[in-house]
Amino acid sequence: MDNLSYSEKSRGRSIIDIPGEDALIAKLAGILPAPRQTALTIGDDAAAIELPGGKFLLVTTDVLMEGVHFRLCWGDIFALGWKALEQNLSDIAAMGGVPTHAVVGLAVPPGWDQENAFELYQGIAECARTAGVDVVGGDTITSVGPLTISVTVLGETKNPITRYGARPGDAIYITGTLGRAASGLIALESNRPIPLDLSAAVEAQMRPIARMSEGKALGESGIVTSMMDLSDGVATDLNRLCRRSRVGALIHEAMLPVDEIVERVMNWVEDSRNPVEIALNGGEDFELLFTAPEDADDELRQICDTPITKVGEITTGDWVVIQHIDGSSTPLHWGFTHPI
Amino acid sequence: MDNLSYSEKSRGRSIIDIPGEDALIAKLAGILPAPRQTALTIGDDAAAIELPGGKFLLVTTDVLMEGVHFRLCWGDIFALGWKALEQNLSDIAAMGGVPTHAVVGLAVPPGWDQENAFELYQGIAECARTAGVDVVGGDTITSVGPLTISVTVLGETKNPITRYGARPGDAIYITGTLGRAASGLIALESNRPIPLDLSAAVEAQMRPIARMSEGKALGESGIVTSMMDLSDGVATDLNRLCRRSRVGALIHEAMLPVDEIVERVMNWVEDSRNPVEIALNGGEDFELLFTAPEDADDELRQICDTPITKVGEITTGDWVVIQHIDGSSTPLHWGFTHPI
Repeated sequence: MDNLSYSEKSRGRSIIDIPGEDALIAKLAGILPAPRQTALTIGDDAAAIELPGGKFLLVTTDVLMEGVHFRLCWGDIFALGWKALEQNLSDIAAMGGVPTHAVVGLAVPPGWDQENAFELYQGIAECARTAGVDVVGGDTITSVGPLTISVTVLGETKNPITRYGARPGDAIYITGTLGRAASGLIALESNRPIPLDLSAAVEAQMRPIARMSEGKALGESGIVTSMMDLSDGVATDLNRLCRRSRVGALIHEAMLPVDEIVERVMNWVEDSRNPVEIALNGGEDFELLFTAPEDADDELRQICDTPITKVGEITTGDWVVIQHIDGSSTPLHWGFTHPI
Repeated sequence: MDNLSYSEKSRGRSIIDIPGEDALIAKLAGILPAPRQTALTIGDDAAAIELPGGKFLLVTTDVLMEGVHFRLCWGDIFALGWKALEQNLSDIAAMGGVPTHAVVGLAVPPGWDQENAFELYQGIAECARTAGVDVVGGDTITSVGPLTISVTVLGETKNPITRYGARPGDAIYITGTLGRAASGLIALESNRPIPLDLSAAVEAQMRPIARMSEGKALGESGIVTSMMDLSDGVATDLNRLCRRSRVGALIHEAMLPVDEIVERVMNWVEDSRNPVEIALNGGEDFELLFTAPEDADDELRQICDTPITKVGEITTGDWVVIQHIDGSSTPLHWGFTHPI
């Protein structure tokens, strides 16, 4: 039952820990009947359903729950609405697609008044407007538990980019920088007033911006061999991509585009962890991780609106390996801990 | 912002009570940007998006939450999975469509083990298998609150049947019988061992069967002028249909297909309410409520696999009125109470 697409969640605690989460999902998927209709994608960011005329309909869904993915004490309800939709748009971008429609399931806590619900919806609306997405339906109930926002987004593409096309020799790329959203979370969880010069990290955590134009352009290029979005960090997500593609990978610590804000946040909270560790494990960057043939480097850089960084290459074999700055290499496990 | 489709919930407590729920939903919808793409349906059971080639893609979503829509102490986790999907299939049927794909968002309570999750998924799988629906994706998290199942279903039709096509003079029909699911809920909430001869009521509540073939056949017939599914009871849902169609209605108490089990359940729990009241207000029958020209009666009965009952007629004006057995007439309000 490989046709299932389960978008993995950052910070969403799973029934059993990653990689057990993926194992459980595979088991749940195994319970479902075999597909009767033409559906593509294997454990990907979104499902892709072939439509007459050669297009694919993309479908992805995410559940965002208070106390699991966010805290209401962070105070920005508008941003929650934004993020609930945007993280789904990232899944569509990761398939090389364009989002078109969304439906929103909302379980509102009993203590909320209408103004809170309006603010949340304004965040959803602003995100939809920015992305050109029509919110065409939903279901709103009063929750007996935490605020829960469940969003399903539809999109389309002529050429879905999956996680299983990476080939040995391909270069591995990442858009933008790493660790910004995770360092924003670290700052928020310090429960201290956050200085203005660290607000970009908080912004990245609370109101992420998916790589929509990059995903579409990379999808249309015909160059990219595999792609996914970084929702659980490179360490976990690159392992997922490699497992799907049945390949290994070698990435280079020195090449990683660690956001400069990570070190500043870590200093401020007096956390001694290496920023590289945050960059590799930090969730919700919503950058794109993709692979392409080595000789496509120039073309890729022209295609993307945002800087991209080559971080390593796809190898034969089963292992994802990181070469450190001192020249040593270690396996890059799910939930990687940087050697001190 | 009338292109929004919010499937109303039975027994799902709203932020403010029905009809305030509908008012709130209209306000939330008003916050959203105007649609940029071709999307049909106005406050309907599902959104309908026009695809190239004259087909419509249907989309509907429902959130089912423990403590709001069901209690885990009822003990049938398999049935919960079934119902979470089936109630969405009913929305597709109500549009005259055929369901094709589903995605499932699942927030599993912290105390659950894998076996519970498997049982829930088996219910989803059995429902999907029966309906020929492919479950193509999902998102599974561990909840910090109640079990929450959020299902989105896609479907298709060449001829979406909306709620706004009813015309004065049309006859009003209902498939099957009324009140069975509501009386099942009453039996369950009695917290007493339920006798075998009332188990059909419990079955209707916990494992409803949507009118899939009837919805499709009625949709394809070209006869039906409006349709919706009965999720909140005739009193509320007929008011919704009439408001959408800008018409009134007269229904006849004597014609209502009240399920014979309702009276038996009411006697068993020693509830003195009139079974008609349960039939009119009871949610989750998932029968189809539809309108068609008076002269189509014979044809309609040939089309439907299940008995249909004419219960009244569409009128000009704003009021939904019920004519009682004694010949008197009263307005049929949302949340109708039968005169003693």
